Amino acid sequence: MLKRYLLAPGPTPVPSNVLLAMASPVIHHRAPDFLPVLDSAKKGLKWLYQTNNDVLILCSTGTGGMVGAVNNFFNKGDSVLVINGGKFGERWTKICRAYNLGVEEITVEWGHAVKPEEVEDRLKKNKDIKGVFVQASETSTGVYHDIKAIASVVKKYEDTLFIVDAISALVAHDLRTDEWGIDIMVGGSQKGLMLPPGIAFVSVSEKAWAKAETSKLPKFYFNFKKERENLARNQTNFTSPVTLIIGLNESLKMLRAEGLENVFKRHETLANATREAVKALGLELYAQESPSNAVTAIMSPPGLDGQAVYKNLREKYGITAAGGQDRARGKVFRIAHLGYSDRFDIITAIAGIEMVLKGMGYPLKFGTGVAVAQELLMAQGG
Amino acid sequence: MLKRYLLAPGPTPVPSNVLLAMASPVIHHRAPDFLPVLDSAKKGLKWLYQTNNDVLILCSTGTGGMVGAVNNFFNKGDSVLVINGGKFGERWTKICRAYNLGVEEITVEWGHAVKPEEVEDRLKKNKDIKGVFVQASETSTGVYHDIKAIASVVKKYEDTLFIVDAISALVAHDLRTDEWGIDIMVGGSQKGLMLPPGIAFVSVSEKAWAKAETSKLPKFYFNFKKERENLARNQTNFTSPVTLIIGLNESLKMLRAEGLENVFKRHETLANATREAVKALGLELYAQESPSNAVTAIMSPPGLDGQAVYKNLREKYGITAAGGQDRARGKVFRIAHLGYSDRFDIITAIAGIEMVLKGMGYPLKFGTGVAVAQELLMAQGG
Repeated sequence: MLKRYLLAPGPTPVPSNVLLAMASPVIHHRAPDFLPVLDSAKKGLKWLYQTNNDVLILCSTGTGGMVGAVNNFFNKGDSVLVINGGKFGERWTKICRAYNLGVEEITVEWGHAVKPEEVEDRLKKNKDIKGVFVQASETSTGVYHDIKAIASVVKKYEDTLFIVDAISALVAHDLRTDEWGIDIMVGGSQKGLMLPPGIAFVSVSEKAWAKAETSKLPKFYFNFKKERENLARNQTNFTSPVTLIIGLNESLKMLRAEGLENVFKRHETLANATREAVKALGLELYAQESPSNAVTAIMSPPGLDGQAVYKNLREKYGITAAGGQDRARGKVFRIAHLGYSDRFDIITAIAGIEMVLKGMGYPLKFGTGVAVAQELLMAQGG
Repeated sequence: MLKRYLLAPGPTPVPSNVLLAMASPVIHHRAPDFLPVLDSAKKGLKWLYQTNNDVLILCSTGTGGMVGAVNNFFNKGDSVLVINGGKFGERWTKICRAYNLGVEEITVEWGHAVKPEEVEDRLKKNKDIKGVFVQASETSTGVYHDIKAIASVVKKYEDTLFIVDAISALVAHDLRTDEWGIDIMVGGSQKGLMLPPGIAFVSVSEKAWAKAETSKLPKFYFNFKKERENLARNQTNFTSPVTLIIGLNESLKMLRAEGLENVFKRHETLANATREAVKALGLELYAQESPSNAVTAIMSPPGLDGQAVYKNLREKYGITAAGGQDRARGKVFRIAHLGYSDRFDIITAIAGIEMVLKGMGYPLKFGTGVAVAQELLMAQGG
């Protein structure tokens, strides 16, 4: 028997109570039974998003939410600015180009965070920019972009929307939609929300809704105005993914019981312990600055293939982490501390990394990283 | 305690074994664990679709599959022919128009089936028609359009694709994708496949793939060429809805054990018993011809509101059926016999209808419809 541990940056482990809630008999999405279910999910998402904006619920992966953030608010040829510092930054560019927007990029070296001044600079130079797109946590590099600082820049431009992919950051980072002025923020179920993949969430500000009035890009499945009308009566535009929404209420209940501040603090503690533990092993973080609290990307030691580390973790120890993507492939491996994650998940990850690296000939003393993690984790909840 | 019975045309009841399979620990969609899961689902869908074509698996409702059937194979301004005989026929028109296709409609009176000769007539008159869109089972009216006959017409036109929304027909009707020449056929999880809502399926013929090469409509989330590339290596383009695909394998296993011919026969028997039972109660079917084996739409007796029948079934007897949609609202109520449906579901439905109608003052003798159903159902599996 090889016991399995899911420590990847999505899908993340789903608690048994959530899985079992989703195994309840299916209810009909247009019958009265469902209305309080959606109402509760709607309210819970507003709480999590720290917003009074509508938070739409879509039946799609997070990427579907990203597409909707493009095709509902812009027009062919619109200038937009994409902050591209990783695989998911690239995705914003690809989506915007698929819809024939004029994309200008700030290319951020992988492993680095964007400088908010650079965003300001670009907005000053090109007054036509209608939207700024960024990731909160760039999952491919383990970098967190400073959403608060970027928001304060974009806010000054009346005609420019600020759009955040928070798919992996939501729950792991304190993202203050209304206080900071995030116009559109996309989340997904299979990350911090501790659910299986299948639903996406998108908050939309009044400033963005006003833009939606003039958007002529083709839309049918991701038609946010229709979703908004339906949401007002606790429905979705098409068949609601009822089981996932029931699960969502269960996971929101867990997060509410913990309290938002504690949720963020837990993720910070887990992420920090992971980082310090791997550093104690002589390893380097891929994030040269502003590391994400959702996922830690770790440079594989010189001469060791990051994909082999990832593979050994899974095959020899049952730990499903993640390798590197695209240009980071082979250079890094990644450990998530996201969602249903606690102290001993970190201990498991670090102990596993120690065992795999030692097995691959990397010199280390067992327990070195684990001890550092223990030290830092003991504070949590204690 | 009011025990609940789900007899709506989607979502339909999900068997416990399927629900529990979906409550298994989440696995990672890019890890090797997942490859055999998708491979098995892929093969099972080909079996169910009776096709050697690729059957794509999308994370969306069935409508997402319909959108993909439009945005991957056509271009702005293309002439297409939509057979519009109900709410879902209208949906084809709306989707095609959202993507700026030139839509020509055959308007079929609700409750009637299209005449294949009329399709032939239109195709002869307008040689530019690039696609013919239809529902197999039009859920809003309970009518089955003769897919075999329409396919044999469209087949003669080399430049015209035949696109079938089989969301509610799949499993309930024998639809021979390859033998009849259906280019694109859309299915959804929450109908005959006995799953919660959340995934859609689309089969695509080689003739359609050739068209995809020249389609320039904007696409990113529903990008079928990318899905095809991923499917070849047992992956999906974006995060796979892993739990639903695990559930799909479980429901496909049940269908395979029963055998395709028996599955279709069961639906035919259940549908036929439902129709004859309600006729024995003096009620009329909404389908004036070619009734669907997935759902029966029943005319409410003169003077009785169909919505009230639907409401009483649910509130007094715990039976969630369906009311009428749009212009059929108030005129009909609908009973599904789709997916995880057996003889005593029909008995329950008919007995419930008798009790509700009698309660609303409609003169009938208890057991009249039930007896007719018993007679016809006893043959099934016996």
